[in-house]
Amino acid sequence: MTRKAVLISAGMATMTDGETPYGLCHDAAIAVDGAKIVWAGAHSALPQEFTDWPIEDFGSRLITPALIDAHTHVVFGGDRAVEFEMRLKGASYEEIARAGGGILSTVNATRAASDDALLADALTRVDVLIAEGVCTIEVKSGYGLDTETELKMLRVARRIGESRPVRVNTSFLGAHAVPPEFASRPDDYIRDVCIPTLRKAHAEGLLDAVDGFCEGIAFTPAQIAQVFDVAQGLGIPVKLHAEQLSNLGGTQLAASYGALSADHVEYLDQDGVSAMARAGTTAVLLPGAFYTLRETQVPPVDLLRQYAVPMALATDCNPGSSPLTSVLLAMNMGCTLFRLTPEEALAGVTRNAARALGIEDAGTIAPGQRADLAVWDVAHPAELSYRIGFNPLHTRVFGGLA
Amino acid sequence: MTRKAVLISAGMATMTDGETPYGLCHDAAIAVDGAKIVWAGAHSALPQEFTDWPIEDFGSRLITPALIDAHTHVVFGGDRAVEFEMRLKGASYEEIARAGGGILSTVNATRAASDDALLADALTRVDVLIAEGVCTIEVKSGYGLDTETELKMLRVARRIGESRPVRVNTSFLGAHAVPPEFASRPDDYIRDVCIPTLRKAHAEGLLDAVDGFCEGIAFTPAQIAQVFDVAQGLGIPVKLHAEQLSNLGGTQLAASYGALSADHVEYLDQDGVSAMARAGTTAVLLPGAFYTLRETQVPPVDLLRQYAVPMALATDCNPGSSPLTSVLLAMNMGCTLFRLTPEEALAGVTRNAARALGIEDAGTIAPGQRADLAVWDVAHPAELSYRIGFNPLHTRVFGGLA
Ligand SMILES: [Zn+2]
Ligand SMILES: [Zn+2]
Repeated sequence: MTRKAVLISAGMATMTDGETPYGLCHDAAIAVDGAKIVWAGAHSALPQEFTDWPIEDFGSRLITPALIDAHTHVVFGGDRAVEFEMRLKGASYEEIARAGGGILSTVNATRAASDDALLADALTRVDVLIAEGVCTIEVKSGYGLDTETELKMLRVARRIGESRPVRVNTSFLGAHAVPPEFASRPDDYIRDVCIPTLRKAHAEGLLDAVDGFCEGIAFTPAQIAQVFDVAQGLGIPVKLHAEQLSNLGGTQLAASYGALSADHVEYLDQDGVSAMARAGTTAVLLPGAFYTLRETQVPPVDLLRQYAVPMALATDCNPGSSPLTSVLLAMNMGCTLFRLTPEEALAGVTRNAARALGIEDAGTIAPGQRADLAVWDVAHPAELSYRIGFNPLHTRVFGGLA
Repeated sequence: MTRKAVLISAGMATMTDGETPYGLCHDAAIAVDGAKIVWAGAHSALPQEFTDWPIEDFGSRLITPALIDAHTHVVFGGDRAVEFEMRLKGASYEEIARAGGGILSTVNATRAASDDALLADALTRVDVLIAEGVCTIEVKSGYGLDTETELKMLRVARRIGESRPVRVNTSFLGAHAVPPEFASRPDDYIRDVCIPTLRKAHAEGLLDAVDGFCEGIAFTPAQIAQVFDVAQGLGIPVKLHAEQLSNLGGTQLAASYGALSADHVEYLDQDGVSAMARAGTTAVLLPGAFYTLRETQVPPVDLLRQYAVPMALATDCNPGSSPLTSVLLAMNMGCTLFRLTPEEALAGVTRNAARALGIEDAGTIAPGQRADLAVWDVAHPAELSYRIGFNPLHTRVFGGLA
C-alpha cells in the first residue's frame, strides 16, 4: 500500500529538460501521493497543502528518477562462459561453432528450458539491476526463433514484472537470427515463422514493441521492412538493432516507420542521424557490447548532439556480446568509451531511456510522473558515472512509498 | 572463534600450479582446523581423521581461494567526479589544474582529512571489495607527500585491517608525485622528505614494502634508486609503478633490487621481461587504469607468458586513473582488454597476487594455507571473468569458519 509523503533530501536531479544541468535542485522536496509525484521543487517552496504530510528525510543524499534499462535480453537459457574462455584460449569462431557455441547455443538452451527455469535465471540478472535502482526494464525475445519459444520468452518477460517490483516493457525480436532449420532461407523464416509469431504474440497481449537485427549476419532492410509492415498494421511501435557492425541503412528504414529507437548505431552516418531527428527516434547506445567485442568505431555522438537526437544508454544484457548487468557501469562506459558527459549518461538511463520505450510517465521527477525514484549516497550526480563497480544506491522507490 | 570443519562442494579451484586447469577438483572437500587448511582434495579421498568433523555443505557451488587485491590506493581524501565531468565537457588539463583538479587535489584533500574521516571513506571502498570475496588488500600511501600525511595514510591503512576482517599489506609510496612545495626540486623532495619519512614509517612498523612511480611525470630511475637503496638497507622489499606510459627502464631497475612486482608495465620490453624472470618479479597488470585512461598499448602478455613471469591483476583503486572497486571487473577487463585467459585472470587475483605481495600462506587452497576462501554461485570458474557487473559470491571465509 502506497501512501502520501514528502521526500526531502540535500539534492535532487529531476532530469527535466530545463535550465539547470541535471535539473539539479538543492534542499529538495518531492510530494508523493500514492504511486504518483504531485509536486517537486525546493523544500522552502513546498505548497501549503503538502506541509502537513509525513516527511521522509533522506538527509545529505541525492534523489534521481529511478533508472531504466531500455535494451536487454535478460531472458535466455544457458551461459556462454566456456565459449568466452575458448575464445581467449585462441579458438576460432569455427571451432567455437563446432563445439556448439555462438548464438545458436543460447537458442538451443532457451528452447530446452522450462518457463520456470528461464524465469528463475532471468531474475538473478534482474535482481542485480533492481539493486542499482532500476524500476523499468525492456526485455526482448529472440533466442527462440520458433513460435513456441518466442512466445515462452515473452511470457517469461511478463512474469518478471509479476515476480518483482519492476515494470517490464517487451519487444518481439523474432528477426534476431536465422534459425538452423531455415539456414540460407531467411525469407521463408520471416514469412513462415517470424510474422505469424508476431501476430500471435500481439493477440496474446505480449508485445509492447517490435524489434529486429539489421546486419550482414542477420537480416536485410527488405526483410526487416516486411516485419515492420505487419507491426505498423497492428499499431505496434518498432525499434531496430542497426548500424552496429556496418551501415546497411537500417536506421533510415526504422526512422521511416517512426521507430522509437535505433540501437547500437556505431556506424550511423549523417543521413541516418538526420532521419532519426526528423522521426523523433532515440539512439540507444550500448557500450557493453562495444567493449566486449573490442570495437573501435564509436557512435557519432557529436552528430547526434548536433541534430538533437536523444541518446539513451543501456546494458544490452545478453550472454554473447554483453554479459553486463550494471546500468551504472553502462553509464561509466558511455562516458569513458563514447565520451558522453555524466549528465548525458544519466539522461540516457532516465529521461531518454523512457523516451526510447515510448513511456511518458517515468524518467523525470515532475508532477504527474510515477514515483519511481532512486536515492543515492552521493553528493553530485557525476559520481554515478565516475565510479566503476560501486553501487551507491541507498533506497529505491517503485511506484510510491511502501 | 574459528573451529574444525570439513567444507564440501560440487567444485573447487585450488589454483595450485599443477596438472589440471585451475587446480579444478569435483566433489571437493577442504578440512579446516581453526584458521588453517589442513587437507584439500576429493571428498571421496578424505582421510579417516577428518571424517567425524562437522561438515559445511556448499552444495553445487564452487570454492576458490579468497581474492587478493594486490595494488590499491584506497586511502585518499576527496573525490574526482567533478574533474571527470569537466574533462568530458572538454576542459583541458590546464583548466582542470587551475580549477584545483588532478592528483594535487587528492593530495590537498588527503592532507586536510582527519584519520577517522580517511578511514571511514576508505572503508566504503574496502567493504565493496570484501563483498566480492577479497581477504587481502594491498594499500599504498602516496597522497600525502609530506611526512605527517604519509604516516597518517599508513596508520589508516593498518586500521583498515583492525576495522574489518581483511588482511592489509602496506606500501610506502612517498615517491608518487612531486609535491607543490618541491616543484622542480624532485631531488630535494626525495632527500628531505621521502627518505626520512620512509625511515620513520619503518621504525613505526607501518611498512610491508616500498613502492615508487617511475615515469616522466613522476620520478627518474636514479631518484627511485635512492629510495630503493634505503629500503634495501632496511630489509624492506620493493615494487614499482613502471613502464605505464613510456619505457624508462624502471622494471629493470626494480628487478635489480629483486622487486616483488613491477606494476602496469604496458610499455615493458623483452629486456625488462627477461630481467623480471631472472629476479622472480611478478607483473601486476592494472586494466582499470588502462581502460580509464583509454590507453592503446597493452602489456606484453605473450612475452610474459613466454618467460613464465607470473601475472597478477588488481584494481589500482584510486580517485584519478582507476576509480574501480571491483576485482571481478578487473578480471573481466584483464580478459577483454589484455586477452588473459579466465584461468590467468583468476590466478592473477589469487596465487600470483599473493606472490606479488610476498605472501606465502594465501592465494591457493592447500594444506598449511590460511583458510581464506570464497564460495561462489557459479558452476565453472570462467564465469567469474565472463560476467560484467555481477557478483556471484555466496560466502567468504576469512581465516577459518566463524
Ligand atoms: Zn540487443
Ligand atoms: Zn597505482
